Amino acid sequence: MSQVNIQTIAKELNLSISTVSKALNDSHEISAETKERVLHTAQKLHYSPNPYASGLRRKKSNTVAVVVPEVADSFFSQVIKGVEEIAQRKGYHVLIYLTYESFEKEKKILTDLQNGRVDGVLMSVSGETASTEHVDALQSAGLPLVFFDRTVEGTLNGKVRTNDYESGHKATQHLIERGCQRIAFLSTSPRLDINGNRLNGYKAALKDNGYAVDEQLVVQCTESYSENYAIMQRLMKRRQKPNGVIVSVEKLITPFYLLCKKENIAIPADVKIIGFSNLANAEILHPSLTTITQPALEMGKAAAVILFGALEKRHYNWQNEDVVIPSALIVRDSTSQATH
Amino acid sequence: MSQVNIQTIAKELNLSISTVSKALNDSHEISAETKERVLHTAQKLHYSPNPYASGLRRKKSNTVAVVVPEVADSFFSQVIKGVEEIAQRKGYHVLIYLTYESFEKEKKILTDLQNGRVDGVLMSVSGETASTEHVDALQSAGLPLVFFDRTVEGTLNGKVRTNDYESGHKATQHLIERGCQRIAFLSTSPRLDINGNRLNGYKAALKDNGYAVDEQLVVQCTESYSENYAIMQRLMKRRQKPNGVIVSVEKLITPFYLLCKKENIAIPADVKIIGFSNLANAEILHPSLTTITQPALEMGKAAAVILFGALEKRHYNWQNEDVVIPSALIVRDSTSQATH
Repeated sequence: MSQVNIQTIAKELNLSISTVSKALNDSHEISAETKERVLHTAQKLHYSPNPYASGLRRKKSNTVAVVVPEVADSFFSQVIKGVEEIAQRKGYHVLIYLTYESFEKEKKILTDLQNGRVDGVLMSVSGETASTEHVDALQSAGLPLVFFDRTVEGTLNGKVRTNDYESGHKATQHLIERGCQRIAFLSTSPRLDINGNRLNGYKAALKDNGYAVDEQLVVQCTESYSENYAIMQRLMKRRQKPNGVIVSVEKLITPFYLLCKKENIAIPADVKIIGFSNLANAEILHPSLTTITQPALEMGKAAAVILFGALEKRHYNWQNEDVVIPSALIVRDSTSQATH
Repeated sequence: MSQVNIQTIAKELNLSISTVSKALNDSHEISAETKERVLHTAQKLHYSPNPYASGLRRKKSNTVAVVVPEVADSFFSQVIKGVEEIAQRKGYHVLIYLTYESFEKEKKILTDLQNGRVDGVLMSVSGETASTEHVDALQSAGLPLVFFDRTVEGTLNGKVRTNDYESGHKATQHLIERGCQRIAFLSTSPRLDINGNRLNGYKAALKDNGYAVDEQLVVQCTESYSENYAIMQRLMKRRQKPNGVIVSVEKLITPFYLLCKKENIAIPADVKIIGFSNLANAEILHPSLTTITQPALEMGKAAAVILFGALEKRHYNWQNEDVVIPSALIVRDSTSQATH
């Protein structure tokens, strides 16, 4: 008997794969009538909610893929280490694909992975990722995918995340408590859920403390180092320049520190800084950097555990896993009380 | 006609693959008589020195593998970026395997790669790698392998390296010129050719300046952060402690800086430091770090160009390529003249 998957059901009912996914997941976006039709067809065709469990699969490559935007960021290299630790115990190889923040590249990689090269995929989406057909197609081909850190809405996947909203809130609250009144928020792609959540936490903390949100202090950077430097330069040359900055993406930290060094802006006297970063050398920067540090290793392990569950257990509703592991605020000199 | 490779010749003559490789490469380790026998058999069997050229190969995966010890080191993440740039132009996928400095893992990966998953391999060997059978076996399976940075002797492969001996010499000379008399050299695996070459450059520079080599200042670190911290602590507690240190491996920089911070050892007044590092944030450390910076991006590109040459050109003697791209000394505050 050929394998019944959500694609089979979609074809039978002339619905999109995404609609079938959502109906099976009891999504509020789908009407009761459609859900009924999908469930009826699923039963008729003997659809199994976990076609990935090893007993049902034909070939095993004993390999899983980790798809990430880059490895220059300390967060991703630590996640990979966590994945590797679990994979090693299970006797699996790990191979790593980089998207360099390109949606085109991400789509090509997932298409390429459908050919049986790997048994499952762990992914953090690119900053450009705008739709989910490539994820649905991969899963229709029988490969489970678990998201970590950066996720997309509207697909049936396990997820491992950190508390980005709370972290954005906590970072802002910390700067307010250290005396900052004008706090800027530096970020990159607004498409990414993690960036949006951190930003929302920032805005909420401002409001909680009776501050208005100044949209001119919400700064969107790019993937270009020189552009980012110029953007930060403009920010710090404003008449009402910020005296607190949340650098919510690791790669923006070095250009911001360099700018302060070159323009003689004293940290923390003139401006206090918090970075979202897992850099081991945050402690030896000048000055040492207060960070929101993500549980990268633990997130890698948790995502791998869900993926291997999807591959090995028959009755495991891994698609609904949504694990949140909290980040930590580590206070260092870049936010210490100014003594001027 | 089945493919004739060095394995075929080795079997025919009852010699090791390694001996046949070396004989075909006119190595001085092999007797004239054996070379004669190997060449005769190669001609008889119509052996082609480049069985990798695409026209001769059956299946194409349009994928190349990069095998590296880790990605937490900024050098490797930049090399990968260089490889990716060339691969993208050629329409190839790049996938990354990590050995975590384990020879066992490296062997498993190369064995796994023989199954046609990739068309060719770029590799920097692990700190434990002690023999070359796994490399020979991969090539016998028809997959070209190009080394970058860390290489092993005795195989027939293209190589892209930097001038480690000269860099070790230059770093030492710089510290001597800045007034250091007792210069320590911190390194990891003594098996790695790059570590040996850097160390030899250090020793030669000491001799050139009339200093004796003090073996107690040649310090071998491990893969454990806490062990390394303790090793460095012992070094800096010696009665005749060094006033100059060459940190020849990037990951040793952070623990050394932290040690100095905690023990109140002033950089550069008490001890001057040069690090072998490609860290973007060397400039914003406290104090900013003088580095030997490797041409990582260029090395990745050059290695990829050789590999694609091996895959695409019929008459290209890629196995004998040995490209050396020099590193640069970038002087910053960690080696500035002390004013005490």
